[in-house]
This record gives sequence, C-alpha cells and structure tokens, in this order.
Amino acid sequence: MTTPEAREEAVLEAVRKRRERVNDAIPEELPIQKPERLYEASRYLLDAGGKRLRPTVLLTAGESLVDAEPLTADYREFPTLYGAGEIDGVSSSDGADGPDAIDLMDAAVSVEVIQSFTLIHDDIMDDDDLRRGVPAVHREYDLETAILAGDTLYSKAFEIMLETGAAPERAVEALDILATTCTKICEGQSLDVTFEERTDVTPDEYLEMVEQKTAVLYAASACLPAVLLGADDETIDALYGYGLDIGRAFQIQDDVLDLTVPSEKLGKQRGSDLVENKQTLITVHAREQGVDVESLVDTNDVDAVTEAEIDDAVAELEAAGSIGYANEMARDLVAQGKERLEVLPDNEARELLFDIADYLIERGY
Amino acid sequence: MTTPEAREEAVLEAVRKRRERVNDAIPEELPIQKPERLYEASRYLLDAGGKRLRPTVLLTAGESLVDAEPLTADYREFPTLYGAGEIDGVSSSDGADGPDAIDLMDAAVSVEVIQSFTLIHDDIMDDDDLRRGVPAVHREYDLETAILAGDTLYSKAFEIMLETGAAPERAVEALDILATTCTKICEGQSLDVTFEERTDVTPDEYLEMVEQKTAVLYAASACLPAVLLGADDETIDALYGYGLDIGRAFQIQDDVLDLTVPSEKLGKQRGSDLVENKQTLITVHAREQGVDVESLVDTNDVDAVTEAEIDDAVAELEAAGSIGYANEMARDLVAQGKERLEVLPDNEARELLFDIADYLIERGY
Repeated sequence: MTTPEAREEAVLEAVRKRRERVNDAIPEELPIQKPERLYEASRYLLDAGGKRLRPTVLLTAGESLVDAEPLTADYREFPTLYGAGEIDGVSSSDGADGPDAIDLMDAAVSVEVIQSFTLIHDDIMDDDDLRRGVPAVHREYDLETAILAGDTLYSKAFEIMLETGAAPERAVEALDILATTCTKICEGQSLDVTFEERTDVTPDEYLEMVEQKTAVLYAASACLPAVLLGADDETIDALYGYGLDIGRAFQIQDDVLDLTVPSEKLGKQRGSDLVENKQTLITVHAREQGVDVESLVDTNDVDAVTEAEIDDAVAELEAAGSIGYANEMARDLVAQGKERLEVLPDNEARELLFDIADYLIERGY
Repeated sequence: MTTPEAREEAVLEAVRKRRERVNDAIPEELPIQKPERLYEASRYLLDAGGKRLRPTVLLTAGESLVDAEPLTADYREFPTLYGAGEIDGVSSSDGADGPDAIDLMDAAVSVEVIQSFTLIHDDIMDDDDLRRGVPAVHREYDLETAILAGDTLYSKAFEIMLETGAAPERAVEALDILATTCTKICEGQSLDVTFEERTDVTPDEYLEMVEQKTAVLYAASACLPAVLLGADDETIDALYGYGLDIGRAFQIQDDVLDLTVPSEKLGKQRGSDLVENKQTLITVHAREQGVDVESLVDTNDVDAVTEAEIDDAVAELEAAGSIGYANEMARDLVAQGKERLEVLPDNEARELLFDIADYLIERGY
C-alpha cells in the first residue's frame, strides 16, 4: 500500500508531465503574431505558469476512454472511438462515421485559453494587482490591452477547439459546450459580485455560484474528450458530473486554504477573503450558525490585518463548525465525483482521475 | 427612372422592415433571465437602437441566394439550397444532404449581438460616455458589469449561431467564420489604439486596420447565409468580398461625415476625430501631402473647439485633396463590392444589396 505522500507525489508527477505537453502546445496554437503587443498580452498569464489542471483532466479522461496507457498516445493524433464498437464498457455513441484520430491537445489548450481569458477579465473586475506571482495583465500592460487580450483569447479558444479534426456533429456539440460554459462562467461571476453586497446568501446559493463560476469549466474539460472521441451520452454525462463535483470541491478547498495555510506559503495574506468580505461556503455557513461574520475582522485592508486577528477569526469559525462543514462538503463532492467514473474502463488513467480528485482537496496549497 | 431621394427612401424602408423583425427576435434569443442585472446590461445597447445594417445585409443576401421575394419568406423557416440543385445560377455546394429550412434569423441576431459586444468593450477602452444617445454601459452600470455584459454577449452569439438548424458541416464553417471574425476585430481594435501614438501610418495600413476592425463583420454577415444555406465556395467568397468592400466604404464615409455634417445632425461635435487625434483615411492622406495634421486643431478638448477652427481645418484638408481622396476611395470600394454580386441571381433582393452599398456612402449621417 502506498503512503498518501507517495500518492500525492505520483499525482503531481502525472500532472507535471501533461503540463509540459500543454506548455509546448500553447505557443504552437497561440503564436505571437501581429499586432505583437496584443498577442504578447494574451500570452502573458499563460506563460507565467499555472498547474494546467483543466487540460490535464481533459487529456487523462481521453486516455481512460480509449483505454490508452497514460502518456503513451500522441495527443495530436489521438485514437477515437468511432466505429470501434465497444472498448471495455465504453461504447461509441451511435456507430457514426468519423476520423480514426483527432487532435485532443487542441481541446486541452482551448479550455486553458478560456481559463486564462476569465482570469484576465476577473483581475480587472476585482482590481487585483498580482496573479501567478506576476502583475495582472491590466497592471503589466493597461486596461485597454487587458480587455482586448481577454477578448482575443475568447475567440481563439473557439478557433482552436474547431481544429481538432473531429466529425462535424461532434465538433458542433463541443463548441456548444464551450459556449454555454462561457455563458455560465459570466453568470457565476455576476452572482459572485452581487453576493458581496448581500448578507443572506445561503450555502445552496453559494454552491450554485461556485458551480457556474468555477466548476463548469472542469465539467467541460472532463466531458469534452468523450464528446470529441465519440463516446455515448451516459459517459459524457458521467464525466460532466465528475467535473462539476471536483470543480466545486476545488473551490471549497481554496476557501479553506485561504484561512488555514500560512501567508508565505499561500503567496498572499492568509484570511484575505475574510478581510475583503468575500463570501465563502465557510462564512455563509457560519452566518447561519449565528456568527457575526462581518465583525470577525475589523479592518478591510489586507495590509493592516494581524495574524492574531486571523487566528481569532479562524478559531470562531472552527467553533461554529463551519470549517469542518466545508471540509466535509468537499470530501462528499469528491467521493460523489469518483463514483461517477464507474462508467469508464478500469485502467490506469481512471485511477489518475480518482487521484486528481483526491489531490484537489488534500493539497496543502 | 427613380430619383436618388426616392431610392434612398426605398432602401431605408427595406432596412426598417428588416430591423423590426430583428428587433422582435432579439428578446426571444436573449431573454432577460437570472442574474437579471447581467442580462439587462447585456441588452441595454441592443434595446437602445441601431440601424441593424449587418443583420439586414445577412437576411437580404439570404433572400437573394434562394431567389425569394424580399420579406415574403419566414426567416425562422428559411428555405435552403440543399439538394435543390441550381437556382438561377447559384448552385448548392456539393449536393450534400441538409435540412429543407433553417432559422436564418438566428444568424442575423448573432452578428448583431457580436456588434453589440464590441461596442460595449470599445466604449470602455475609449472611455466614451454616450452611445446611441444613451449612456455607455459602463456609465449606466459600472465597469465590472460592462466587461461581463460584453463577455456574456460574446458566448451568447456563438450559442445563437449554433441554433440555426443548419447541417453540422455548415454550422462548423459558420462558427469558424464567427470566431475568426471576432479575432480580427480584436486585432483591428488593437491596431487602432497603436495608431493613435504614430504619425507615419500609411493609407494602406489604415485600410488594413479598418478591414479588421469594421469590415470583417460586414463580410461575415454577407457570406454567412451562403455558408448556412449551402451555397458554393465561389458565392461564399463573392459575398465575403462584397461585405469587406462595403464595410470599408462605410467606415471611410463615417470619417468624411465626422468632418462635413453639422454637429447637431451628427449627434456629437463635428471634427471630433481631428480634436482627439484619431487617424482617419483623410488625415493619413493629408499627412502624406505634407499637411501638418497635428496642428490643424490646437485643442485636444472637444468641448473647447470652435466651429471656425473646424472650418479652417476642413478647408485645408480639402485643399490637400484628402476629402476627395476618401470620397473616391469609398465610391471605388462600393463599385467593386457591387460588381462581386454578379454571382447572385438577378432579383429584387440583389438590387437591395446594391442599394444598401450605395446608401452606405450616400447617407447624410
């Protein structure tokens, strides 16, 4: 039996190897071209790093679907399920004709490009200065360039998704998923903004917002290979559900980490969500338990708050059972998400999807 | 023989009738739903007016292609060319199977939604206060909401374009045109911004910028019905070229009107492009003739400039032949665009496409 540390190490290694492939593909799909300043700004955050969790989920789900040994298949010439009949439980959707291979990396880059577009525009909206350890795009460049860079990535993501070489029926479905996902992300971001002015948000409302703002892109990432490779609807739905579950768990864990990880490890002030009155599942739960959440921290300035103030606030949230509530919710979502993967062939790639789900809530930061 | 006034009146009437249909369709395709504030902001400019020239070009091109009497066909159940063989010169692309009818109005609304998204984000970038006689979205709402409203319209345009019911091969091609069009609009807007800091922009560079920023959406509007209805490549290319030509002519005419139409008719200060040092084909040409364009108007404040100053500047631009140059360029582009329509059946809708082209440069404002 492997230790938790060894398992986490193996997950990180698997993610790292896929990240390298994705990093190689990004400049191929999104070269710096004229007008250079626009494309440099569009690439700025993509080049600054990121774990590439969403493309990793996408590529790994593809590997599991076609029963490929992880990292052995060429993502650019990825075997499809068309006409293959049944592979270890996963049947192709309708026996429709289609290509023998598609470029699955295009789909992986596309979802990462969407993620990057949302980060650029979100940083403008939140007026955040830093992202991934570098200045936000509207700080490094300017507001105009940042808006345009986001808009450029938006359409580029659609262009790239159209290049997979999948059969038109599948390509149309993939594009539809991408478009509705983007709409939901906007709706979720809009809800998040309105929540900042409300003190009566319920846990269910909060979870709905997280589903739209964060989880739908994980859901799209997980189900898109099934759509493009030609899997049946049951498989597509199961993978979509897996993505929604782990995406929500990911965000809840982020909320917990903001309170529990030392500032230097977190890369920003611990408890900044509390200071900035951002709603989290923890504060929403605490308020329902009668905690006066607005008074937990006096200041609204992250530079002025003390570690002692944060310690006291966290102690009060723990006493109300709110951190435990969030931890349990994240664990339940991950367990539910993993269960959905029963539809996939029992292979190493599916194990990795289990492990990624666990990692999202076990990670220290 | 009809008088120019009677012809312009007929064009305006034809545009008005299509505009009404488009106006009816917009709330159907983009209903106000939760979160309401987001969708209200997304609809704000669409509801504030606009000539709907791009959807009108799209619907009229569709009518000409299938040889329909203008305004008699149901845009929601629009007959296609699939399997119809040859209609008066326009052959279907490859005899591919496809539906008998598609929802062409979806495509028309989609391009108008894209246009509205670009206006919302452009107004933020230019920090403009007014649009279509109402406050810009970032003024009526706020910066965050305006960015998000634009982003929402962006993905909604793709969703709506996916609802036409066209055969998947055609839908994929239409989506590709929409995505590459959006990318070019961003590139054009980026060029426009960088031009403001340059004094050596050539007419060719300026025309390239206008092509990307403005004309490609006309080109997409003109060719999308051909793509969706299943016309051949020659027809698609000809309509795309028509759109590029009339789109560039439209922008050049806008530049001329900014100098020649009284402020009260223009709805803003006449000569504001000069005051704000915006490049136009006129200033770019004048600079090549040795005119010191930067000194034509002393102030950078549209509220401080006098009519006499504008008069003197216009006189100097006229003496340099720059206004005549722009007028001639617009006329040539319209003539070229009309010539391309030779591929269409000789019918009333094609006449209307000719007349729309003429109207774009003959309109008084």
